[in-house]
Amino acid sequence: MTIDAEILRSLRTNETGSVSGADLSQRLNISRAAIWARIEELRALGYDIEASPHRGYTLRASPDLLHADDLLSRLDESQIIGRDIRVFQNTTSTNDIVEKLARDGVAEGAVVFAESQSLGRGRLGREWVSPAGKGLWFSILLRPKLAPQAVTKLTIASAIALARAVRNTTHLNPEIKWPNDLLLAGKKISGVLTELTAELDHVKHVILGIGINVNMTESDFPKTLRSTASSLRIQSGRLIDRPEFAAEVLRQLNHDYKRVTEGCFFDVAEEWENISCTLNRDVQIQVGDRTIKGRAENLDQDGALLVRTQHGHLERIIGGDVTMRKNEP
Amino acid sequence: MTIDAEILRSLRTNETGSVSGADLSQRLNISRAAIWARIEELRALGYDIEASPHRGYTLRASPDLLHADDLLSRLDESQIIGRDIRVFQNTTSTNDIVEKLARDGVAEGAVVFAESQSLGRGRLGREWVSPAGKGLWFSILLRPKLAPQAVTKLTIASAIALARAVRNTTHLNPEIKWPNDLLLAGKKISGVLTELTAELDHVKHVILGIGINVNMTESDFPKTLRSTASSLRIQSGRLIDRPEFAAEVLRQLNHDYKRVTEGCFFDVAEEWENISCTLNRDVQIQVGDRTIKGRAENLDQDGALLVRTQHGHLERIIGGDVTMRKNEP
Repeated sequence: MTIDAEILRSLRTNETGSVSGADLSQRLNISRAAIWARIEELRALGYDIEASPHRGYTLRASPDLLHADDLLSRLDESQIIGRDIRVFQNTTSTNDIVEKLARDGVAEGAVVFAESQSLGRGRLGREWVSPAGKGLWFSILLRPKLAPQAVTKLTIASAIALARAVRNTTHLNPEIKWPNDLLLAGKKISGVLTELTAELDHVKHVILGIGINVNMTESDFPKTLRSTASSLRIQSGRLIDRPEFAAEVLRQLNHDYKRVTEGCFFDVAEEWENISCTLNRDVQIQVGDRTIKGRAENLDQDGALLVRTQHGHLERIIGGDVTMRKNEP
Repeated sequence: MTIDAEILRSLRTNETGSVSGADLSQRLNISRAAIWARIEELRALGYDIEASPHRGYTLRASPDLLHADDLLSRLDESQIIGRDIRVFQNTTSTNDIVEKLARDGVAEGAVVFAESQSLGRGRLGREWVSPAGKGLWFSILLRPKLAPQAVTKLTIASAIALARAVRNTTHLNPEIKWPNDLLLAGKKISGVLTELTAELDHVKHVILGIGINVNMTESDFPKTLRSTASSLRIQSGRLIDRPEFAAEVLRQLNHDYKRVTEGCFFDVAEEWENISCTLNRDVQIQVGDRTIKGRAENLDQDGALLVRTQHGHLERIIGGDVTMRKNEP
């Protein structure tokens, strides 16, 4: 962990809410003058840090910006996801950056955030609107020991992790639309793009590209999207603390990634099934040129969706584009 | 097609075996002086081109080197595989080069050859010995409309295409060991490394990395490999014309790639089954940490191997490492 991350962590976790320069100096093994210089730099970034001769340093407020050291300071050091965090002000797409990291041999768990993306994309090559400072747009590098066909498990796991992070932060209860869109009041607030690179029988790396509409207002969405997309701010009626929410998202994603890699996908699937709005519904799914109609029954052991067609046949669906149909009586 | 490729094609395909400077000049729409300059450059590369006042130019011999224009000149212009050919004298791994081309949006069918590789690799991260000028080490960029789990089809298709190219060139009959190793007299002469990049439900690109031991002698192999690896030269007892063999390989690969993308995988699988030495044998397959023992029965619709285990259960195998066991009586 960097010195700035250590300082922010100490300021946040000390019981009295304050830390003396002497304490910090001893803990981090650098001079009090060096501590003072770091504090000044954090202030320049917008951190409101009070210095008092008696109590020492107190963190009064943090800016609403994504800062790698700040995010690191909020996470447990044993976490895989987020042990390497990089923040870009603007990129084409965070997935592209992480793809480069993957090829350079960077370890799994690296996360790249962008305050805005010029070429953000969703599933099926669709554009993803990602205005500056209003959402969380990020990609995660994973190197799971999975066969390519089992990567669906990660998609399922990421959906429930995001749902839990939203619930813990806003007390709203998102539903999941197959495979991993989160909906609030029927409108999309987040999506996950899963990209994998593999040999025939094993994955080399997986990139989860995640977009969450956090503090966007109606006017931040193009008119064409307003009937189908929303944000946590619109749905909860309040501004969300983005850095703290980002940390919570990484904590929950780490939790479910561990469940998948430790062989507990059954629990993950059960949680997904409980908050899915796709199961036990008549659905129409577009997979490439094919349209499949039927009733979504449940997930299989790899996280594929099992759909009972009109002809009674069980179809195994990976990905695709779901439309819910009115349940016939 | 480049001018050099057009000249070489004209020299090879003209019925009289010769082409006049005037003919070439008219066909390619450049001056006779320019034709002369190109011929001089081809000679410098090692092409033995005779110039006679009566007959014009005659190609007497081609050098045993991989030259992009030469390879292009030997292929039908309608071919997808090989419509863009690049030759490197030395690279780390041709798969790495093609991966970069893929990310840069290069169209499918591009082929990268290397005369030698410093970091050539086979399946499961194994080293692939690739000495200069003795083999064909190349990678192909494909962008098929396939689901990730159907990419096995391309592995199966590439194996039969390579087997046919070897048969047409040497009159030897290679066997295929699951999934795509070619064997002659029980020794490996070629292998294919299949790498894919995909979203959950569709492939973005596939790279076939192919290594064929062509003109290697015993001493070109490390001692540890001599009992398990061989070359076309060792098995046929003669030197193979590498450029012509390379062109034949690309022709056959193109043929089977078309069969897969046009929905004729059934024919491909049947051909594979006919020359496989894995089917109807008792096999032991290592897939990651698991060992599966049973009898290899046939391929399924996606090209996975179906193995009947000792318990009568049918296992679907993708990749893995096969050992043939003596058939029990």
